[in-house]
Amino acid sequence: MSTKPGYDKNKVILLICDGLGDRPSLGGKTPLQAADTPNIDEISKAGINGLMDVISPGIVPGSDTAHLAILGYDPYKYYPGRGVFEALGADMALHKGDVAFRANFATVDEKMRVIDRRAGRKGSKELAEALNGLEIDGVKIFLKNTTEHRCAVVMEGKNENLSKYVSDVDTHEAGDIVKKCEPLKGKEGEGEKKTAKIVNEFVMRSYEILNGHHVNEERRRRGEPPANIILLRGAGSYEEVPSIKARFGFSAACVAGASLYKGVAKYLGMEVIHVEGTTGRADTNLNNKVEAALHALKAHDFVFLHVKATDSMGHDGDFEGKKNMISRIDKELVARIKDADSYIVITADHSTPVSIKRHSSDPVPVVIKGVGVRKDRVNKFDEFSAASGGLGRISGIDLMPILSDFMGYYKMYGT
Amino acid sequence: MSTKPGYDKNKVILLICDGLGDRPSLGGKTPLQAADTPNIDEISKAGINGLMDVISPGIVPGSDTAHLAILGYDPYKYYPGRGVFEALGADMALHKGDVAFRANFATVDEKMRVIDRRAGRKGSKELAEALNGLEIDGVKIFLKNTTEHRCAVVMEGKNENLSKYVSDVDTHEAGDIVKKCEPLKGKEGEGEKKTAKIVNEFVMRSYEILNGHHVNEERRRRGEPPANIILLRGAGSYEEVPSIKARFGFSAACVAGASLYKGVAKYLGMEVIHVEGTTGRADTNLNNKVEAALHALKAHDFVFLHVKATDSMGHDGDFEGKKNMISRIDKELVARIKDADSYIVITADHSTPVSIKRHSSDPVPVVIKGVGVRKDRVNKFDEFSAASGGLGRISGIDLMPILSDFMGYYKMYGT
Repeated sequence: MSTKPGYDKNKVILLICDGLGDRPSLGGKTPLQAADTPNIDEISKAGINGLMDVISPGIVPGSDTAHLAILGYDPYKYYPGRGVFEALGADMALHKGDVAFRANFATVDEKMRVIDRRAGRKGSKELAEALNGLEIDGVKIFLKNTTEHRCAVVMEGKNENLSKYVSDVDTHEAGDIVKKCEPLKGKEGEGEKKTAKIVNEFVMRSYEILNGHHVNEERRRRGEPPANIILLRGAGSYEEVPSIKARFGFSAACVAGASLYKGVAKYLGMEVIHVEGTTGRADTNLNNKVEAALHALKAHDFVFLHVKATDSMGHDGDFEGKKNMISRIDKELVARIKDADSYIVITADHSTPVSIKRHSSDPVPVVIKGVGVRKDRVNKFDEFSAASGGLGRISGIDLMPILSDFMGYYKMYGT
Repeated sequence: MSTKPGYDKNKVILLICDGLGDRPSLGGKTPLQAADTPNIDEISKAGINGLMDVISPGIVPGSDTAHLAILGYDPYKYYPGRGVFEALGADMALHKGDVAFRANFATVDEKMRVIDRRAGRKGSKELAEALNGLEIDGVKIFLKNTTEHRCAVVMEGKNENLSKYVSDVDTHEAGDIVKKCEPLKGKEGEGEKKTAKIVNEFVMRSYEILNGHHVNEERRRRGEPPANIILLRGAGSYEEVPSIKARFGFSAACVAGASLYKGVAKYLGMEVIHVEGTTGRADTNLNNKVEAALHALKAHDFVFLHVKATDSMGHDGDFEGKKNMISRIDKELVARIKDADSYIVITADHSTPVSIKRHSSDPVPVVIKGVGVRKDRVNKFDEFSAASGGLGRISGIDLMPILSDFMGYYKMYGT
């Protein structure tokens, strides 16, 4: 199988509305059905529609694995663990063998009971600096504060045989005692034991250093709980993977707010465009995103444009919020990209039904508009109409090969 | 990948009408189209419909492999061979390494020519007793008569290195000479040779013991052919597999008549509910089945309800019979489960078109009704209407993951 240039070189804007898919709830409708989406529907009408199982039917996608699949990378082969994406998204340097984590500043009492999993929304930068560069058992640990209480943590692997197969320290619930990091079941090798030991020591050291830190003294004086520990989770192990350019032949850029998506994009060798004013919430700045995407399309063949807020509202069970966010995406974003000189693709990384406030495996709608697509009879972009579209029911991993053929960068098997 | 509970815990009744799928014949209709099915259609109308390739397109499913797939077990990985299901379904104890067979009492002449493959519908229990517990080359052989001429046979494996890769002794046609059991091609190891030798000796011993048995003397006196040999087929090798509870997280029960389906259910760790009056024919007692299923739903999250007769009539080429059986299922069974407090799923394990009197690979219709499903426009449950349903065309192996997400016992990959 080889990648050959085709006769035409076309571009693509891939808009992923995070968690867009839903189940019927209010009045039997999904937020996407209830939203006001004349522009999206125009694309649906002009394009070919379908449903997409991002991983496979019945398997609930995480946001990280889902994006890998949609961007053409089999997550069962290429998923390095969440921490890697968080660290890359935070602009930290990673080298082969490094182990990276997501981390939160949190509040614990002297018995290591978690009072607040998300502490220190202010002053976190300084607290992160206090921990950055620690060395434990010869392994250097780097830390970067991203937003609010959130950090990424990197353990320098070098020849240290570190492993991502270790458990979370984060309790995921307030009220519980901070967990001990342990090798995952069935993975109890030397590397795992060593990594777990370093993680546990790092967490204890973080308490010693942070508890009496002047930032926390000030917090206590103001009556706020101290951000006196760092809790790690989502270990990932960095390895280089072939870039989108190397695998598909075209250059790609990413316009996203949250570090996870930027991290995935970096991992795949995409250019990550910085955008101001993105919040992942109802007040996120879509204008800056669309400007950045249209600008990126000049220098790149493929632009991945991500909007997080739809997922956040799904998790909140906020039907009206999700509906209104979709209407905003239609008016402020899709209206401005719909006539771009490129294929327009709209889809989601998974469903986040407001009725269950979690990711679900319900397939997501997908539409491709552009030269030569087999326009079907679907004229409304939603979870129901898409089921009768010309694409049928595809898998997430198939989307990029389909797009790369439309773009003229196709893989041919045989002669 | 981990199985996590969701926010809601929902139940499922899965109704499998064996061999339900068909091809158009009389008046261009299938038996399912021609049947009177107001209740099934009501479910179709309220639910999401689709077609299902139980194994994969074009591959004709056996009943055993089909049920494995539909219940979420890849048959290419988990299929132990038919004999295992027959023995488990007959309530025989099986241990790792045991090799089990389906078996028939048959009539042979002194040249070992098969006169009747299905002999001894009466008195079989006593004949089975005469063979039960024989020991050949140190291997104990147990036998149990199930219904009429049918038996299950278990060779105690222990450390005997027995193998399921041996050929059938059964001729599958009257008039042929009893076959010699041999190692399957490409599998001619010591275990296969040993197993084949024991099978051949067991069959010969069965003739010696049964031919002069008083039950057969009486049969001869009544002018009936003697049940003077036992013919083995469908060797299977028992191994424990992770249960449905272990893999999906919920408890499951089976309501079925024939030993095969009960055996599959036991193999997967389901509770098998005994039901009186099931025959697999037009006179089968559906009332007892529906009572058992509704009762089982109280103690279990998932109830697999099986009806065999539709398949039997397909094999008989009996259009009217199959049509009428479907109408009976609608009226006597579906009418009573349709409002149960659970998801209702109706499908088949394969098609058994009356026109060809055998299993076929034509995909089967499937419908899922319950909270949050994306109701489509299909309002009639049949092989044609289902093709335009919201599920599209799924694979048998995908059904359980899809259902487990609806149930709130979902697998998430990534974060």
